[in-house]
Amino acid sequence: MTAGAQQVLIDGLQYCNWSREIFQQMRQGGLTAVHATVGYHEGFRETVRHLVDWRTRFRDNEDLILLARDAGDIERARASNRTAIFLGLQNPMPIEDDIGLIEMLFDLGIRFMQLTYNNQSLLGCGWMEQEDSGITRMGREAIAEMNRLGMIIDLSHAGERTALEAIALSQKPVVISHANPRWLRDSGRNVSRSVLEALREKHGLLGLSLYPLHLPNGSETTLDQFGSMAAQASEIIGAEHLGIGSDLCQDQPDGVVRWMREGRWTRQIQTAASFPAQTSWFRSNLDFPGLAEGLIAAGFGGAETSLVLGGAWLRFITASLPSAQ
Amino acid sequence: MTAGAQQVLIDGLQYCNWSREIFQQMRQGGLTAVHATVGYHEGFRETVRHLVDWRTRFRDNEDLILLARDAGDIERARASNRTAIFLGLQNPMPIEDDIGLIEMLFDLGIRFMQLTYNNQSLLGCGWMEQEDSGITRMGREAIAEMNRLGMIIDLSHAGERTALEAIALSQKPVVISHANPRWLRDSGRNVSRSVLEALREKHGLLGLSLYPLHLPNGSETTLDQFGSMAAQASEIIGAEHLGIGSDLCQDQPDGVVRWMREGRWTRQIQTAASFPAQTSWFRSNLDFPGLAEGLIAAGFGGAETSLVLGGAWLRFITASLPSAQ
Repeated sequence: MTAGAQQVLIDGLQYCNWSREIFQQMRQGGLTAVHATVGYHEGFRETVRHLVDWRTRFRDNEDLILLARDAGDIERARASNRTAIFLGLQNPMPIEDDIGLIEMLFDLGIRFMQLTYNNQSLLGCGWMEQEDSGITRMGREAIAEMNRLGMIIDLSHAGERTALEAIALSQKPVVISHANPRWLRDSGRNVSRSVLEALREKHGLLGLSLYPLHLPNGSETTLDQFGSMAAQASEIIGAEHLGIGSDLCQDQPDGVVRWMREGRWTRQIQTAASFPAQTSWFRSNLDFPGLAEGLIAAGFGGAETSLVLGGAWLRFITASLPSAQ
Repeated sequence: MTAGAQQVLIDGLQYCNWSREIFQQMRQGGLTAVHATVGYHEGFRETVRHLVDWRTRFRDNEDLILLARDAGDIERARASNRTAIFLGLQNPMPIEDDIGLIEMLFDLGIRFMQLTYNNQSLLGCGWMEQEDSGITRMGREAIAEMNRLGMIIDLSHAGERTALEAIALSQKPVVISHANPRWLRDSGRNVSRSVLEALREKHGLLGLSLYPLHLPNGSETTLDQFGSMAAQASEIIGAEHLGIGSDLCQDQPDGVVRWMREGRWTRQIQTAASFPAQTSWFRSNLDFPGLAEGLIAAGFGGAETSLVLGGAWLRFITASLPSAQ
């Protein structure tokens, strides 16, 4: 596959230590859009501070990136040779216990929200709890509210039952922005066959992760193995519902892994926590177009490869996000 | 029973629309100590504001009440003819997702905290959820931290499994500050025989509620029926582990019921929500000493009656709260 004029490259999840250099790499890699994580364990007020920081980044790098609120902004970014950045939350902590804060965060630019991050949340259960009792009373309200607004429900990091219930309860298709087939890497963090099938039935989207701990062979996973994994996922969900959510955490210090894992909810410190080494073939946005090679080697055709590298995400976002006018 | 010099009257839960008049009634009723609810759905910052308001109340009514931090303050209140007010939370929302906030709130005067209020919390499950998956990862941390500090764990409003797991996990005895035997009023809000038995085995305490929706015959429940209910609870847990947690919500407008039930987590409004009428024999702190009559009629002896009306709470608080020096 060559980067044709119509090719759209979209990464469905990154949490980098954002810098002008990274935004430049997005341009060099040809990224049309990126879903960027704003926060993990922050409450409303701290999240708003992160959003203020993002506004500053958009101003300081307006030649490279723009704040994306709808699919039209992807087209606007492409027309002006920039990367459209969609903002999202990996945890519902920013809405605290206030259903009304979903709308406030939507208005401030948030377009994706996970219902859980590893642990039990007020909305549902994360994959690291001993037991998952599914979507809570507030969770049902939050799903309805996100549907109403057009905020995309992301089930990455959810428990199995919570994921299945959310897929069933949502009136709109949902995503798992960054996870891989569980049968290729056995972790509750990855996605089971039944969740993937439920996602397909409700026209959801899976973003394949390039985070080594989600890959079949960790940091040693080859590009061919990635392609083969994508092919297995595609067999179930179809290339039109398959994308990339690289989970790229470029330039982040190891302390950020501890923040992700420990937040403020525990006094037990994982002193040894560190980011795993990236695979040799995916270290930055510069490597994104090269994923095509692995997909083609695994038998994806040109059109399918285009779907997985951005077309499916574009279609999903176009169908999901309301026009911001 | 007459109010002897040594009689201690303690109410293990009230959430009144606090006023000088109510504090005067506490004195007239002879209340030695009251556990007062500070909040339900408020986050940390709003809770601190409520604590500021309490400091103002203590200053403005220093002839009637004092802020109680330990059992010594109960003695201090009795010696100065005042009522000792212990402050507590009916929901862990004030600690948000920060384990460290438990210590901060303890230092600011909070001595009781419920792990849940009706709904799923970050710590465990409330009785109104469809399913209860027990104590969460953060819940285990919070129980250990409350044990370390000496903050009393209150399982009122918890789900059955969450209550049983918390009783088992806690290294210190816990309370259910305001609930009644479920077999006399069938509500998940009330306490089952097995929870009551588990509470007894771990030397916990049950505070009997006088809130009409928890009573066998609602607002029409008689004082004799209350006494008979107390006798049934006492058969299981013993008078030395039985107290009162009246759940008195004196002078509160009906909007407060909606706040309790709906918080900010739902958009569904219960327009008809209102407080039920109190029983004729318990409308204010003035009626507290009169509960003795119902207990005696049900067969409680003088010593047992003293335990239920305050002695058991005094013993529990003395054993539980560290000295504040």
